[in-house]
Amino acid sequence: MDEFEFIDAIKQNSYKQPSIIKGVGDDAAVFRQTTRDIVTAIDTFVEDVHFSRSTMHPSHIGYRALAANISDLSAMGAVPAFYLVSIVIPGSWSNEELTEVYQGMAELAADYRMDLIGGDTVSGNELTISITVVGYVNREKARYRSTAENNDIVFVTGTLGDSAAGFHILNNPGDYKDKMFYQRRHRTPDMRADFASKLERLSRVALNDISDGIASEAHEIAEASRVSLTIYEDKLPVSPNFYQFSTEQQHNWKLYGGEDFELVGTVAKNEWETLKAIAAETNTPITPIGYAKSDNDGKYRVWLRARDNRTQPLQKKGYTHRSG
Amino acid sequence: MDEFEFIDAIKQNSYKQPSIIKGVGDDAAVFRQTTRDIVTAIDTFVEDVHFSRSTMHPSHIGYRALAANISDLSAMGAVPAFYLVSIVIPGSWSNEELTEVYQGMAELAADYRMDLIGGDTVSGNELTISITVVGYVNREKARYRSTAENNDIVFVTGTLGDSAAGFHILNNPGDYKDKMFYQRRHRTPDMRADFASKLERLSRVALNDISDGIASEAHEIAEASRVSLTIYEDKLPVSPNFYQFSTEQQHNWKLYGGEDFELVGTVAKNEWETLKAIAAETNTPITPIGYAKSDNDGKYRVWLRARDNRTQPLQKKGYTHRSG
Repeated sequence: MDEFEFIDAIKQNSYKQPSIIKGVGDDAAVFRQTTRDIVTAIDTFVEDVHFSRSTMHPSHIGYRALAANISDLSAMGAVPAFYLVSIVIPGSWSNEELTEVYQGMAELAADYRMDLIGGDTVSGNELTISITVVGYVNREKARYRSTAENNDIVFVTGTLGDSAAGFHILNNPGDYKDKMFYQRRHRTPDMRADFASKLERLSRVALNDISDGIASEAHEIAEASRVSLTIYEDKLPVSPNFYQFSTEQQHNWKLYGGEDFELVGTVAKNEWETLKAIAAETNTPITPIGYAKSDNDGKYRVWLRARDNRTQPLQKKGYTHRSG
Repeated sequence: MDEFEFIDAIKQNSYKQPSIIKGVGDDAAVFRQTTRDIVTAIDTFVEDVHFSRSTMHPSHIGYRALAANISDLSAMGAVPAFYLVSIVIPGSWSNEELTEVYQGMAELAADYRMDLIGGDTVSGNELTISITVVGYVNREKARYRSTAENNDIVFVTGTLGDSAAGFHILNNPGDYKDKMFYQRRHRTPDMRADFASKLERLSRVALNDISDGIASEAHEIAEASRVSLTIYEDKLPVSPNFYQFSTEQQHNWKLYGGEDFELVGTVAKNEWETLKAIAAETNTPITPIGYAKSDNDGKYRVWLRARDNRTQPLQKKGYTHRSG
């Protein structure tokens, strides 16, 4: 299988997005979007930095790489439409494995009716996957991390730390409760795209996706919005059997564990009921975890309040990428 | 300089494109384009596969990587607007060198009023640069390689083989005529973006950019358009002092030498004068090099005709990426 045969193998036979004009097969792709704004981001994943074949099947690697990109679109309130994939291929990867990587992406893409519209395949020593996603959002409805205000409620979707727990389980075989659940959360995480796209009903919501752990993401909202956030540690949502891990693991994973691809945001108190309704419509668990305060000393800190009400600054440290 | 400081160092302070809504600084970029179609492509460059520090300064590497992407937009008849850069950084590259890579891109981007609107920086063992470009083209004016027709004139812009000659000179120091010219054509090639964007005045033009050598690109037009092309070898345009290289070098470089980033296309005879006028307006040398014939046996070949009128099939072989 040479490069051209490989491209034929991964090329879509038809496109789902009505806005597509020209997909794969020329020097570039062409599409048209006259009513909504266009949202785009790029993310790159390197073997043995962001993933490892020891804990991920090739299809998981593709799935999770695209998932991380869709999550960026969700964090903007956008719906996914297209993706482009550039891949650096070392000799140690077979064409069958590479095809599985693309199949993992295609599986997730099908859920969102996304089309693969471009890419590049080149040789190199490290498997490296760069994905560019394109999505759409209604005008004036892109959601930024810079719009949090005084007295906002801080909320988070789903449960935190599951991906880190799954990574631990994959690297430390043994008996665990809900083992498959945690592994799935690590390898093929769910997205919050449906929930995110309905947030346009809110007049205002600050939003970030949790790719690097909530500590890091909350700091980004605080700094961009020039507020301070207080988060109650015992309100951070965790999965039913998360208690099986050590206290230290629980603490580290839920605050600093990355790649849960949940969303963290802030919303005005008078829109909390609307947010709850959107969550119910889209089967999205949401939890209030704290509040925002306008910050007069310009420090824009994130505070962590323990069960005994002792409060200390939450470290900005984020997720250090491990092979996963 | 950590990742955040590095991003600050390369971040634009203002944006030139009026269609930008949100640039760098959130989970994704946002823009709006209601009147034109949107064109996008991704290309990836790996150290010691696509470039080498022995023949390129860091700024050249950035410049040429973006140039290759702009060339893809030109081949669609589109004007560049935005770019996103994802970079895999090994420990052997200093932050100063990396900043120069980005400066090389910024220098070229400024010529086209392009804005850097996103990116990713990750660790790895091989310097790898993935660039996604976004451009605009008027409706129904995207130029495809699939539209060549019987009796079209085949044309090419500029001169061929200069980048390969420059690469040879950089690797084989010595006395050469126009040494700086050839090195510049290799390191910081000119684009044909202005010429390409004016081709919308033609009712039809098949178009490809010459990233992999004219032999390969002509085959792509022939196959996509289901025609055969005949090219006269002695009509292929070369630079004034190209004769200083051996006959074999000349032959190989002008036919199979990649990365000249010129354009090859076909146009109807009755629009040749319009094409010449566009070329004159944009100071673009163009040369007729052959013709297209509808192909009834379904082989869609490219023929090379020598000075003595002997004709043989031109091999499809393209540019094999060397460190350059």
